[in-house]
Amino acid sequence: MNNAEVMNVCPDSSLLHLRVVMIGAGRVASHLAPALASQGVQFCQVYSRTAEAAEALAEVIAAANHSLSKPEAIHQMDALTREADLYLVSLTDQALLSLLPQLVSGREQALWVHTAGSVPLSCFQGLTLRGGVLYPMQTFSKGVPVDFSLVSLFVEASLPADLLLLERLAALLTTHVHRADSRQRKALHIGAVMACNFANHAYALAQYWLEQQGLPFEAMLPLIDETARKVHQLKPMEGQTGPAIRQDQAVMASHIELLHDYPQLQAIYRQLSQSIIDLEKTKSNQD
Amino acid sequence: MNNAEVMNVCPDSSLLHLRVVMIGAGRVASHLAPALASQGVQFCQVYSRTAEAAEALAEVIAAANHSLSKPEAIHQMDALTREADLYLVSLTDQALLSLLPQLVSGREQALWVHTAGSVPLSCFQGLTLRGGVLYPMQTFSKGVPVDFSLVSLFVEASLPADLLLLERLAALLTTHVHRADSRQRKALHIGAVMACNFANHAYALAQYWLEQQGLPFEAMLPLIDETARKVHQLKPMEGQTGPAIRQDQAVMASHIELLHDYPQLQAIYRQLSQSIIDLEKTKSNQD
Repeated sequence: MNNAEVMNVCPDSSLLHLRVVMIGAGRVASHLAPALASQGVQFCQVYSRTAEAAEALAEVIAAANHSLSKPEAIHQMDALTREADLYLVSLTDQALLSLLPQLVSGREQALWVHTAGSVPLSCFQGLTLRGGVLYPMQTFSKGVPVDFSLVSLFVEASLPADLLLLERLAALLTTHVHRADSRQRKALHIGAVMACNFANHAYALAQYWLEQQGLPFEAMLPLIDETARKVHQLKPMEGQTGPAIRQDQAVMASHIELLHDYPQLQAIYRQLSQSIIDLEKTKSNQD
Repeated sequence: MNNAEVMNVCPDSSLLHLRVVMIGAGRVASHLAPALASQGVQFCQVYSRTAEAAEALAEVIAAANHSLSKPEAIHQMDALTREADLYLVSLTDQALLSLLPQLVSGREQALWVHTAGSVPLSCFQGLTLRGGVLYPMQTFSKGVPVDFSLVSLFVEASLPADLLLLERLAALLTTHVHRADSRQRKALHIGAVMACNFANHAYALAQYWLEQQGLPFEAMLPLIDETARKVHQLKPMEGQTGPAIRQDQAVMASHIELLHDYPQLQAIYRQLSQSIIDLEKTKSNQD
């Protein structure tokens, strides 16, 4: 594998002459596409189910790089160009799997790339030889900008030349570009669910509980910041604090008692406390 | 209640002439005492069960403010001075409750203050009329400095004059000083267990899982940072993402399947996913 192969995929040796279509206008698409555009990547079309969403993202992409022409916003699949080099698909997993055959049809020669953590590369099997994945390890919220230079991007592709192309594309955004096969990517996605979705749920439980008590959730913010900051210095399994890791039964019992009107909170308090104790035992057995 | 009462407690109208004893040399003590010392608070003694811990904290306190004399390090309760104005007790909840009678005996005229979230003010009942609480809403790790100016401090005291004194003392460290009674403080502590201890456990689950898979936990750090940062803008119940909140059964099932060799991880993945769904229902019913 050498650069010549990359040249074959992208003959002018530049990512900036790729004709790219963004399929989807949700959270991932609306962060990823403008970030790529700001680095000079040319989007020729944006597809979304609704004309409004497609138009809105096309405008954001155009605003991200004034030297490029604004992509065409489309909301009907028939209008998808057959002339693009790269189709970047950021849809829900279900939509991706159900729409892919229709999307790829007549566009089999292009490179098709999805951005999902838990959809294997094999989703492209039988549809195109040139499948790929560009998985950003980040959580995206509408309207909250993301600094991609801090984000890890995991790439996979059916063809070696396309893998190199995706690595180069990803490298426009960050130095943290890694290869990961479909199983590793799913394992990473599970890690992300735990470290991000479950951590946010822990914050949400605190918010719900404190609001019920008429107490300010905002008092938690320095604590949340410090807990997140600390894992940069001390791995979380080593830095666990609180009554469960101390096996302080008296405090845990008094907390469970104060939660008595909230059986769901009681249950999750018990389950997470037990899980902290269990993980510590597992760790001790390994040491 | 007026300033005259504060004067009675602290006749020279200055917190800087209080004679303070630090009882305990653990995580809270070793952050709080140096922070107060750096603002000019004079510690005359530091007590710990071990001579080494007492001496180490005495040195940190001395280093925090070179214009003050180094506190005496003691490890025998008999050596506790009876001349101090304020005894600040940061012990484990059990040690606090079991040692308090012995500690206070002969020193009943002083102000006794603990720093625990879940120990009620009534722990001082029958021992001294002048009990108080100074509860910092933060997680402390040995060797990791804490910026108290960002931390909320919750105060409570038996006597109005002592409450004012504690408010003034706390105000040396932060503008975020609030009164909270014992029930509110315990409710805040429960919130802190959720937002901090449970969130860190979510990180720890990710660490354990990824290490088992030979994948780098470090890839999670931007995600962890962004998840923590986001709650400053968007409350966590509104900002929840991931397969559970989308009720994406296919992704959850495929994750649970990949976790098949780790029944404890499978169980907690199920429990937390269900808890996310349950909390969303509770929220929808409220709206």
